[in-house]
Amino acid sequence: MTLWSEIMSQPAALAASMAELHDPVAETAAWMKGAGITHAVLAARGTSDNAARYAQYVWGARNRLNVSLTTPSLFSVYGRPPDLAGALVVGISQSGESPDLLAVLAEAKRQGRPTLAITNSSSSPMARLADRALNLGVGEEAAVAATKSYTGQLLCIALLSAAMAQDLEQVKGELDEIPSVTEAVLASEKEIGVNAVDFVGHDRCVVIGRGFHHATAHEWALKIAELSYLVAQPFSSADFRHGPMALVERGLGVLAVATQSPLFPELSELLAEISAAGSHVVAISDAADCPANQVIRVPAVAEWLSPIPAIVAAQVFTYHLTVARGQNPDRPRALRKVTRTV
Amino acid sequence: MTLWSEIMSQPAALAASMAELHDPVAETAAWMKGAGITHAVLAARGTSDNAARYAQYVWGARNRLNVSLTTPSLFSVYGRPPDLAGALVVGISQSGESPDLLAVLAEAKRQGRPTLAITNSSSSPMARLADRALNLGVGEEAAVAATKSYTGQLLCIALLSAAMAQDLEQVKGELDEIPSVTEAVLASEKEIGVNAVDFVGHDRCVVIGRGFHHATAHEWALKIAELSYLVAQPFSSADFRHGPMALVERGLGVLAVATQSPLFPELSELLAEISAAGSHVVAISDAADCPANQVIRVPAVAEWLSPIPAIVAAQVFTYHLTVARGQNPDRPRALRKVTRTV
Repeated sequence: MTLWSEIMSQPAALAASMAELHDPVAETAAWMKGAGITHAVLAARGTSDNAARYAQYVWGARNRLNVSLTTPSLFSVYGRPPDLAGALVVGISQSGESPDLLAVLAEAKRQGRPTLAITNSSSSPMARLADRALNLGVGEEAAVAATKSYTGQLLCIALLSAAMAQDLEQVKGELDEIPSVTEAVLASEKEIGVNAVDFVGHDRCVVIGRGFHHATAHEWALKIAELSYLVAQPFSSADFRHGPMALVERGLGVLAVATQSPLFPELSELLAEISAAGSHVVAISDAADCPANQVIRVPAVAEWLSPIPAIVAAQVFTYHLTVARGQNPDRPRALRKVTRTV
Repeated sequence: MTLWSEIMSQPAALAASMAELHDPVAETAAWMKGAGITHAVLAARGTSDNAARYAQYVWGARNRLNVSLTTPSLFSVYGRPPDLAGALVVGISQSGESPDLLAVLAEAKRQGRPTLAITNSSSSPMARLADRALNLGVGEEAAVAATKSYTGQLLCIALLSAAMAQDLEQVKGELDEIPSVTEAVLASEKEIGVNAVDFVGHDRCVVIGRGFHHATAHEWALKIAELSYLVAQPFSSADFRHGPMALVERGLGVLAVATQSPLFPELSELLAEISAAGSHVVAISDAADCPANQVIRVPAVAEWLSPIPAIVAAQVFTYHLTVARGQNPDRPRALRKVTRTV
């Protein structure tokens, strides 16, 4: 029950993380201010790369910071790194150990660029290498599939955004309700489980989300691949229209993340089209009028923080789907907790 | 036979494009030099976004230019664009018409940043909006699924790299052989067709490539989704180890792009593991020792240009797979040639 207990521990883990990160993010934001930064380059893999996708939207929309996800092989295997002039270079990694990501940070230091590590261990190689390190403080993660480290990364990115914008006082209420909202999602785990069991017959699926939920779609798809062994491909709703829309037919399982936002009308229209074409649509939503065959309800929160409760609902869905498919969520095949790629 | 004739026209189209782009890329590179650029921000969707992935590696490895793929919704739907200080902003689009991409270029101009359009129509809205435009010159593309516009985009990105590096004389031989190498790939279309027919029983597959072929993996997967209606998920081999490796089992179809490169040892090792676990591996390769169940042979070319012949082989494979699955490659369902997303 390791994975399940870590999923259920998230309200407490996030509350602890929020307290632990309060001062370090303020100090990090102050340090960034004087560091001559025009944009940010992020290095991450797997789940942490999905947290990096979240940073693209949060830091972009709230802090006007242009964020790019880098290509580690140019640094590690090719030895042909780009010029990082103007960049803050950020590594995001639960373990802080993957050699390809360490190569990106080492090169950034060689170029004299400011470096930041976001890891779940203050003694990790990445935390020791970077100029500054933020420690998630969600406690040791034992399950192979990342859950609380992902929500901890999202929270850390959100807190750093508030510190950069110096609007922590204004958004404090929105942040403070995250642990209780997450708790409310977990309280509905039995209903979510029913939706998951209904989905068990699908063996091909896509996961759709856009904007802040581009990250949620990618992370939900990754959890499904790791745990349920379904090929679940994530798409932004805009990219989906540029080609993959052809996949839609009876029998395709479509998972969507559609909370209220300026993107909701566009996403709604797409889901209605998909559903009309006979695909089975399950959506995570806080909207009364979400056009899906089944809706997993989550509480409404400020849009920029909505990826936290949404992914918790997706984790619960995936856990139940995995069990319903007869797989063991605590022993995903072929994986280890710490993956080291070159 | 529209799609097939466009696939077969690529040697001639690429030769024409090379002649047409020679002077414009030199002028564009000269203009970039004086434009105060520290990094590049690319806006694209669908196939063009895969060309943008190629630019990340080519411009990164050969020109030390840090390239990021942007998030159009921040510009179009949210109206919260990031600060583009230091950026060259590049739109890549066959039609040059999608409103979300036009929103990125319009904002870049508002911020006084240099803008470049790479389109297949010099009278497109994107070409007219940008400070400078490069026209692919591959001729009108009528098929819904992009083929010659993609190889044209790759060639344009490669030529601009040579112009930026001012090493056109040194790499002229490598570039000049591209049309004939592409011709050689097309001459083996019957053998590739046999590989495709053998693959027809798979309904779940992944596509693996890394480095310069990260783009090839994404574009092959997109062609398969659009035309064959298979969920085919693309991965870098490094990201594949960080979770999706759990998908590997008997019955999973694995497509890989594994031409000779500094990444070949790592990718080889992964493919051997996947094959040993019982998944069926088909690889596009120029290497004698590629550990796959079936190898689609392509001629060896300079690594930075290898995505051009490799994707042509993948297009032929996908065309035959589509026909073998009883689908019409000229009428992919639910798609139009020009997709306009907000």
